[in-house]
Amino acid sequence: MNITIVSTTSRNGSKTLELSHFVQSLFLKKGIEAKVLDLKDLPEDFFTSVLYRSPKSDSFRGIQELVTATDKFLFIIPEYNCSFPGILKSFVDALEFPKSFRGKKGGMIGLSDGTQGATVAMSHFSDILNYLGVIVVSSRPRLINIGQHFYDGTMHQEIYTQHIERTLDELIAL
Amino acid sequence: MNITIVSTTSRNGSKTLELSHFVQSLFLKKGIEAKVLDLKDLPEDFFTSVLYRSPKSDSFRGIQELVTATDKFLFIIPEYNCSFPGILKSFVDALEFPKSFRGKKGGMIGLSDGTQGATVAMSHFSDILNYLGVIVVSSRPRLINIGQHFYDGTMHQEIYTQHIERTLDELIAL
Amino acid sequence: MNITIVSTTSRNGSKTLELSHFVQSLFLKKGIEAKVLDLKDLPEDFFTSVLYRSPKSDSFRGIQELVTATDKFLFIIPEYNCSFPGILKSFVDALEFPKSFRGKKGGMIGLSDGTQGATVAMSHFSDILNYLGVIVVSSRPRLINIGQHFYDGTMHQEIYTQHIERTLDELIAL
Amino acid sequence: MNITIVSTTSRNGSKTLELSHFVQSLFLKKGIEAKVLDLKDLPEDFFTSVLYRSPKSDSFRGIQELVTATDKFLFIIPEYNCSFPGILKSFVDALEFPKSFRGKKGGMIGLSDGTQGATVAMSHFSDILNYLGVIVVSSRPRLINIGQHFYDGTMHQEIYTQHIERTLDELIAL
Repeated sequence: MNITIVSTTSRNGSKTLELSHFVQSLFLKKGIEAKVLDLKDLPEDFFTSVLYRSPKSDSFRGIQELVTATDKFLFIIPEYNCSFPGILKSFVDALEFPKSFRGKKGGMIGLSDGTQGATVAMSHFSDILNYLGVIVVSSRPRLINIGQHFYDGTMHQEIYTQHIERTLDELIAL
Repeated sequence: MNITIVSTTSRNGSKTLELSHFVQSLFLKKGIEAKVLDLKDLPEDFFTSVLYRSPKSDSFRGIQELVTATDKFLFIIPEYNCSFPGILKSFVDALEFPKSFRGKKGGMIGLSDGTQGATVAMSHFSDILNYLGVIVVSSRPRLINIGQHFYDGTMHQEIYTQHIERTLDELIAL
Repeated sequence: MNITIVSTTSRNGSKTLELSHFVQSLFLKKGIEAKVLDLKDLPEDFFTSVLYRSPKSDSFRGIQELVTATDKFLFIIPEYNCSFPGILKSFVDALEFPKSFRGKKGGMIGLSDGTQGATVAMSHFSDILNYLGVIVVSSRPRLINIGQHFYDGTMHQEIYTQHIERTLDELIAL
Repeated sequence: MNITIVSTTSRNGSKTLELSHFVQSLFLKKGIEAKVLDLKDLPEDFFTSVLYRSPKSDSFRGIQELVTATDKFLFIIPEYNCSFPGILKSFVDALEFPKSFRGKKGGMIGLSDGTQGATVAMSHFSDILNYLGVIVVSSRPRLINIGQHFYDGTMHQEIYTQHIERTLDELIAL
């Protein structure tokens, strides 16, 4: 079972990437080695030679292969302008269809500095995942006021850890 | 009244851009010179030096100034994976907040090769526009099976032209 | 300018109705006499002789006439099961189409005991309002943890009052 | 495995109920006896003594018991005003929480006379199902122009039957 955690922003020094590594450590405690795919690692020519381009630059091949080999995805989604980061959708738009996602399983964890917790972002992205043929676990943690509760790579809010663990368990069992 | 039509994909040779120019011609018949902003014209370093980067590359300045000077936006939205193109959201994410959009007016026209007509895409993007402080006209044409009805820069489906005209009229009046 | 505040639940003793009357008092301070339409006042035969029934029972006539005469609606929406109360949609489904809503203006205020603040509920309902031809103001207050901040008919959270006032001002100006 | 097909409108003589029975016949061909729950059979006092009322009238008990005993739900959703019928949400609002739905499986089939096929309706309802703890199959048939393709209890559009069958298979396998 190949699990990939997708850190869905390309912002430098993001809380999202930090949280992705924390989630990876929780998987490890369960004996599962999940990979982290950081969208900051999309190739430098992503915008000019990959996205909506055909043929695509070879620079994207490694990421495509990782996605193709993944059985279950966990998307860590920060809230940008009341939805997901645009780069997440561009990433999805650039991948091969339908083999990248069809018949696979997925989960989402949302985070925000404010009190929305990427709720609407996850609603939007679930429509996309459904279209792609991904079955999504129903629990979707909303980690609000994230800066107060998660810092220095450590979760200081036990209920958040519990919510994340439940999503991990549901994704593993699905 | 500065109106900008946004062609919301960066795909080469898109129907979306062709339709944007058609919509521009409809505005012109009403005596209004609307600009077309083509997201294919985002700078080459958009992904590496603009999006989620601070400070941003100067290459984005011209587009930011056009957006800042715009009073009313008309987004021409193709359906990609059951939502809007990722590049549209990345474009929004890269713009200054809140001055780019707050207090302005907007409209949407959706198109697709299939029968959805970017319905869900427009639902998603309307959440974003509302968050940004844009008041959106209620009519949202869904131009389904677009390839059969619009080609060679000409609309061959009169009802589609009527729907578009109504949206233009509502946007002008708002 | 006829403004109607719709208390969108039929639950007895709802916070929503209490808040609707508070909003009415804020309108009054601005010199505007807004009516409150309480969905608990839908006729007793609403389910058996009005909703999805034709012809409809006369019992619904008064409410239909109030809606028809309204220029601007303000929907006070509690969060039930991550969306709006079903009775709100049934109310809309029972009204004459398109004359009840087309070309009118609307606003939404969401409330919840938890931290979502009816965000997704308002996203859903805005799709419906757009379809009906209602132009919606972009500000949508999310009144979270409402029980802590609004009781005895009084708002004890000043920022909430400010958010509501802004929505009222936008609705009046639209 | 108890499967219940929910005909999600209370309109008399609905195409939705007719389609529900057709879907039931497809289940039967697979050797599965699925029940049909018709929302027209909600009790006469649903609005006055069940919905948002506590304690609820005994009249609702049989329906609650059917729901509680169900493992997998298939919702047949007609498009009313760009969303699901209000009565579907009222039905959900009236059921016991969380035991009615949590940990169960679900699917959706949308139908409309127009070309939307209840797409947005299913997007909205999937948010609700996720909140309730239901894992939803990713395939969501959109049966557009339903009146042309399904009548006299017979499906005259083979591709629609195939889409429905795929959803049934996914729901059975989930």
